[in-house]
Amino acid sequence: MSYRLTPAGGLVRGSPGARVGLMASPSSGTVPWPHTPLPVVAAPMAGGPSTPELAAAVSNAGGLGLLAAGYRTGSDMAEQVRATRELTGGPFGVNVFVPAVERDEGRLFAQRTAIEAYVDLLQATATRLGVELPQPNWEDTDGWDEKIEALVTDPVAVVSFTFGRPPHRVVDRLHRVGTCVAVTVTCTQEADAAEAVGADALVVQGVEAGGHRGTHDVLMTPNVLSHPELLRNLRGRRAALVAAGGIVGPSDVRRARKLGAVAAQAGTAYLLTPEAGTSPVHRQALTERALEASVTRAFSGRPARGLRNRFVEEFDAYAPAVYPAVDQLTKPLRARAAQLGDVGGVSLWAGAGWRTIEAAPAAQVTAHLAGPRG
Amino acid sequence: MSYRLTPAGGLVRGSPGARVGLMASPSSGTVPWPHTPLPVVAAPMAGGPSTPELAAAVSNAGGLGLLAAGYRTGSDMAEQVRATRELTGGPFGVNVFVPAVERDEGRLFAQRTAIEAYVDLLQATATRLGVELPQPNWEDTDGWDEKIEALVTDPVAVVSFTFGRPPHRVVDRLHRVGTCVAVTVTCTQEADAAEAVGADALVVQGVEAGGHRGTHDVLMTPNVLSHPELLRNLRGRRAALVAAGGIVGPSDVRRARKLGAVAAQAGTAYLLTPEAGTSPVHRQALTERALEASVTRAFSGRPARGLRNRFVEEFDAYAPAVYPAVDQLTKPLRARAAQLGDVGGVSLWAGAGWRTIEAAPAAQVTAHLAGPRG
Repeated sequence: MSYRLTPAGGLVRGSPGARVGLMASPSSGTVPWPHTPLPVVAAPMAGGPSTPELAAAVSNAGGLGLLAAGYRTGSDMAEQVRATRELTGGPFGVNVFVPAVERDEGRLFAQRTAIEAYVDLLQATATRLGVELPQPNWEDTDGWDEKIEALVTDPVAVVSFTFGRPPHRVVDRLHRVGTCVAVTVTCTQEADAAEAVGADALVVQGVEAGGHRGTHDVLMTPNVLSHPELLRNLRGRRAALVAAGGIVGPSDVRRARKLGAVAAQAGTAYLLTPEAGTSPVHRQALTERALEASVTRAFSGRPARGLRNRFVEEFDAYAPAVYPAVDQLTKPLRARAAQLGDVGGVSLWAGAGWRTIEAAPAAQVTAHLAGPRG
Repeated sequence: MSYRLTPAGGLVRGSPGARVGLMASPSSGTVPWPHTPLPVVAAPMAGGPSTPELAAAVSNAGGLGLLAAGYRTGSDMAEQVRATRELTGGPFGVNVFVPAVERDEGRLFAQRTAIEAYVDLLQATATRLGVELPQPNWEDTDGWDEKIEALVTDPVAVVSFTFGRPPHRVVDRLHRVGTCVAVTVTCTQEADAAEAVGADALVVQGVEAGGHRGTHDVLMTPNVLSHPELLRNLRGRRAALVAAGGIVGPSDVRRARKLGAVAAQAGTAYLLTPEAGTSPVHRQALTERALEASVTRAFSGRPARGLRNRFVEEFDAYAPAVYPAVDQLTKPLRARAAQLGDVGGVSLWAGAGWRTIEAAPAAQVTAHLAGPRG
């Protein structure tokens, strides 16, 4: 059994179609993208903004809320799932980071050397802020095993993955508990890889996206195609397409649907909602509108889009493509800067269209994005 | 004397306005962007596509043709200027790369080390193709001094710069011979820097742009804002704004003008014209439309947008941000691949909208871009 996308964007059961060659080892069936009254998804925003309150509010408003498991322990994530379930009876999902622990000795040596050089650069800032830079944890999987176990034990409607594709066996296990598996992709090659492990949906992330780019290989130059360009290139795939990147108004959602997406995923649009856990300093920068957006590896080692502040100016040119080691290093610096209310020292993720967002309840943002019904 | 942009996009003489603080050391006057019947500029496309025939055809059609001095000697460039002048009586310009010879011993050591590692990676391809990888020339300025002398001796209407800003004294010398000085910028900071040296115009290059991004600092992560976003951020500047990136149709030109640009610069749109020097293998890839675009440092060390072929797949993740050393290294590989007609082994620059371009004379493309008159 499989599902494919109709030209109108609906999901119909059907044959796997032209790309069947990639499904040489089919999963235990597929699980369709959940039907929701509105084609709007609350993007997972790890590091604070995504909360059970935000996810539940979006699901209650007729969209699909997503929790962000990234940077959390498995039990933290499980607790957030329970909290969300108490706030909504609607479907919701969880986003999980795919870890990539480096086993190649040559690449690991290069990474350690690059990290040492970056530590030297960051040291002055650490000293000024009175914080200690941690030793990188090279075995960090962001709690992968615990999270997968928890999501199989207490299933949610959708599990989306970022920074890579899950192994085929993980997709199978999620399918068996009725979970729709989505993979964030930024180009055709990643879409091929995601379909090959049995992904039911592709979150098609364009260059407009705020926060981290989902690029699978940390070393690759991040893709610069917009989500409409990518949707055109990916049209007709077996997997359902969810548009992501710069979705801030109803015309964005409408265009994505016309290009074949079942739904559009908005993150930035929710950053100023009261339900979001966006930090005061982040809210301030988004409201002041004094900075310009850029992509940088400075904060985490992975390319991510946010407002270009002092930290980006100082470190962008020197940040190595080593994740999550760079994230571990800068975490105490960012935490201290946030405490001090220093807009220049924290990450200020923002997608295209961020200048147009307003502070409003998540239900209102969801209704606005969906546009007039009918 | 200075010029500023009217809301309708026209140039009027006026006070330097709000950004006067940046002009603490004013140039010897300013030179306005040349008036042409059509607000269309043929982008400089170094490495082959730009020719005297293309520049002259665009100028004769009512636009502004630009020659690409990049990768040429000063005398080659001067010869192209003379050849263009024989083909058109209209205004035209020349684009020059701003060199950045590294003098910091620490950074130079890091660059040499990174280049050695890249040489190791490229060696197998070089062996297969039967070519020898050259020793990098660390003092390469791309003929900067000769080019500036030639452009002062035999002036053109516009000299635009890419990869940085020229020194103030060079801007002065060009102003004295009546040349309008334009600087390619990709963000607000670069625009500030360009205005500070007295640039008359800013070529505002968005993420849609094919070929090299004009990012001033080779180490910086390339900007991801579209040219409309950048135009909004730069509106009201003293310098005239020229939109660049993904200009392939009349609606792109119209939008840019509405956002305050005096003209829009199109490159990709001219790649298939008979006047362009686009290589057969490049034309083939653009016509087949089988590949997807991406940005990579693999070919030159600087980020550039083109079709993602085998070379990009193999080398993108490992290419160091060292320019022009990487360009020097890959040049014989690309030349040999082009001889062999190997689409996988050459750079295939292409901006957004490249799938829509057609083979037509440059005059026809220019008229199409300008749209219906009036």
